[in-house]
Amino acid sequence: MPEPISNPPVRVGLCGLGVVGQGVWQHLDSKAGTLSQRLGGPVVPVRAAVRDPAKPRDIVVPLERLSDDPLALAVDPEIDILCELMGGTGLAREVSLAALGAGKILVTANKALLCEHGAELFLAACRGGGQIFFEASVAGGIPIIKALREGLVANHFPIIEGILNGTCNYILTRMEREGLEYPEVLAEAKRLGYAEADEALDVDGWDSAHKAVILAFLAHGIWVPLPRVRLNGIRRLTQDDIAFAHTFDYRIKLLANIRRDFERGHLAVSVWPTLVPRREVLGNVNEVYNAVAITGDVVGPTVYIGRGAGRDATASAVISDIADAVLWLRGRRGLPLQTPPEAEAACELAPAEAIENCFYLRLTVEDAPGVLAQISSALSAHHVSIASVLQRPGRQAGEACLILTTHRTNQAAMDETLSSLGGLSCVLADPQLMFIGGDLD
Amino acid sequence: MPEPISNPPVRVGLCGLGVVGQGVWQHLDSKAGTLSQRLGGPVVPVRAAVRDPAKPRDIVVPLERLSDDPLALAVDPEIDILCELMGGTGLAREVSLAALGAGKILVTANKALLCEHGAELFLAACRGGGQIFFEASVAGGIPIIKALREGLVANHFPIIEGILNGTCNYILTRMEREGLEYPEVLAEAKRLGYAEADEALDVDGWDSAHKAVILAFLAHGIWVPLPRVRLNGIRRLTQDDIAFAHTFDYRIKLLANIRRDFERGHLAVSVWPTLVPRREVLGNVNEVYNAVAITGDVVGPTVYIGRGAGRDATASAVISDIADAVLWLRGRRGLPLQTPPEAEAACELAPAEAIENCFYLRLTVEDAPGVLAQISSALSAHHVSIASVLQRPGRQAGEACLILTTHRTNQAAMDETLSSLGGLSCVLADPQLMFIGGDLD
Repeated sequence: MPEPISNPPVRVGLCGLGVVGQGVWQHLDSKAGTLSQRLGGPVVPVRAAVRDPAKPRDIVVPLERLSDDPLALAVDPEIDILCELMGGTGLAREVSLAALGAGKILVTANKALLCEHGAELFLAACRGGGQIFFEASVAGGIPIIKALREGLVANHFPIIEGILNGTCNYILTRMEREGLEYPEVLAEAKRLGYAEADEALDVDGWDSAHKAVILAFLAHGIWVPLPRVRLNGIRRLTQDDIAFAHTFDYRIKLLANIRRDFERGHLAVSVWPTLVPRREVLGNVNEVYNAVAITGDVVGPTVYIGRGAGRDATASAVISDIADAVLWLRGRRGLPLQTPPEAEAACELAPAEAIENCFYLRLTVEDAPGVLAQISSALSAHHVSIASVLQRPGRQAGEACLILTTHRTNQAAMDETLSSLGGLSCVLADPQLMFIGGDLD
Repeated sequence: MPEPISNPPVRVGLCGLGVVGQGVWQHLDSKAGTLSQRLGGPVVPVRAAVRDPAKPRDIVVPLERLSDDPLALAVDPEIDILCELMGGTGLAREVSLAALGAGKILVTANKALLCEHGAELFLAACRGGGQIFFEASVAGGIPIIKALREGLVANHFPIIEGILNGTCNYILTRMEREGLEYPEVLAEAKRLGYAEADEALDVDGWDSAHKAVILAFLAHGIWVPLPRVRLNGIRRLTQDDIAFAHTFDYRIKLLANIRRDFERGHLAVSVWPTLVPRREVLGNVNEVYNAVAITGDVVGPTVYIGRGAGRDATASAVISDIADAVLWLRGRRGLPLQTPPEAEAACELAPAEAIENCFYLRLTVEDAPGVLAQISSALSAHHVSIASVLQRPGRQAGEACLILTTHRTNQAAMDETLSSLGGLSCVLADPQLMFIGGDLD
């Protein structure tokens, strides 16, 4: 038996020692033996930059290993790998660019940073001879980026769908199981620490959109600008929507959808509440779990499920990046992302006319004769074909709740329909629109 | 923007050009541009060894690229990567050892080969300075080996469970949906090409056991001898079992289970029909799909789903191995498996007394007074505690069908109980035993 490989220690610096940073430091420490054996040499967390070194923490880090200067840490010659775990897109960007400029390997869990400055960062990595690893930026502990980049390297990806935000999935699960309205569940989620004090990033879909942009980049090689992601959150969902979903054997999920039409060269990215059939795997992913369904043209449908956030799940992903970085440092292996991503991008963003879906539309309307006729005329004027209608009494006297589902129709027609409906005096509130998933039509 | 990396072509030889081999050759050809771009240089299938070069095939391979001498191909200096896709464990072993002896990289989808000769092959890889990649050997196109080895590198793995055989899952799904008995569904599966002419490898659980042994090696570093895998297949399941499962909201799955008790240092591997709660993800994986549920001590529960077999799903996995091999060739990166696997193995196989489960037991018994008393005495004599009893008329006059479920009990007690039951004259046929999954007890 040959001798085991033994390499010199690889030195890791952490920018940020919050919940995730502490998890990474602790697991690098507690799994030191296992990791050294699995990677053929030690990996050591040597230093961390924090805002206040004196602040008490859950884990013990000797004071001499702490600094309050992240930019100095980023270029520290005694650091091989820099983990950016600060969050935000200001100082985090500076620190990341500094590290890449110094030829270091950057590991980041920061999806907003990648989404807004990805192109700049990857260029800096190319120029400096470093690398960027970012497994923890999408779907927490699920090794989805590795699956997409490496495990499915033989594939093109016509459809990627994902439940990418654990907070939203938790809220939707509780609304369904407990029959509670959104505000009550949100309050509960905040109490339990499943939602941030400012919940907008999660419930309005921005966090999912950041992750969808990263997945779209990995699959198709272009950075979709955030304003081009069709985006809606879960704030306005009610028990009326939940009840409809239940009756017709769906569950409501905030679903990111990345669709590439290879014939027309179109790419479309959306994050939208979607009726997902319960018999499908994604319809059974509940609570804080995330899931990504990737269809490859060679492999067919695949699904990946796990915890999408939290200290340990995220730390697991960050450490897998550190491990890849260690092997990359040793071998300088040519990772796919070193090829300029533009080379892949033989596609443009799809116009609204080219994006088709079946839709769910809930309207709060005046409870008066002729209202259904007005609504259905508005739909037919834009060639939107109705698949089903359900009307029931509204929440207030004089109101009715009208739920329509459509046959397959394009997004432009639906946009125009919504605009026409908004002009009708019998429509009393903004419509609630959902996509209908599965093979309904 | 720096120049894209451009490396010299990497040359691939295929031993075996059956269904999977043809898929690999074809997709390497049709995706040549994409793969060259993603990997920073071309990957070319240059030669294949087949039994009969003149045989007509679905894909066109020039005759001068075919040979009938796999051993010569294995050591051919014009080949960098050898894909062993012949199957079997005789010639396939010789070819693999020859390639590794010549310092080549071996890519294989052959689970039986790895399971029986894995230790020898990995030693040969270490000695020759080559590598072995085997993503396609477990769960087809699902990149499960990459997830386990790389994506979850920070974890230890207390539980791995998997639906690892598509043929069995197809048969069980059809039995449930159509209410047909096993022999009818098997005949149908053979007609449709979902089952081999000799179905034993699949339905008796051997194929799942091979894959479970490979997963156990990856997770825990030891090769469990096949006779130490607790093994049972699906041949003897009937609509009585399906009906019970349905009534109590379970589905029957042939489940591989790899359990490690880190405190006691025990490892246990089994493949057994199991009642899986329908609310769990694995309970919703049907038809020919495979699924693997990996619980990591850091990441928590994760699940991976996809097609477990078939030309294209398997080719997708083989090509991902070829891609890894290309990057490894360029960087000679030190992959985890180069450390001697024994180093991880601080565990021994668990004795039957240490393996606990809840059990389902279906007995065909004499329909006579006192029978239930005899049966329940046999259980209590071995301290097996009954959780539920269901008795109904049997298939023949004078017979009863008796279904018992137990509280958590150990495998040794259950083995002894089965042996006692076998000695009772009122027990008319071999009992059908299943594990009960989920958190029943």
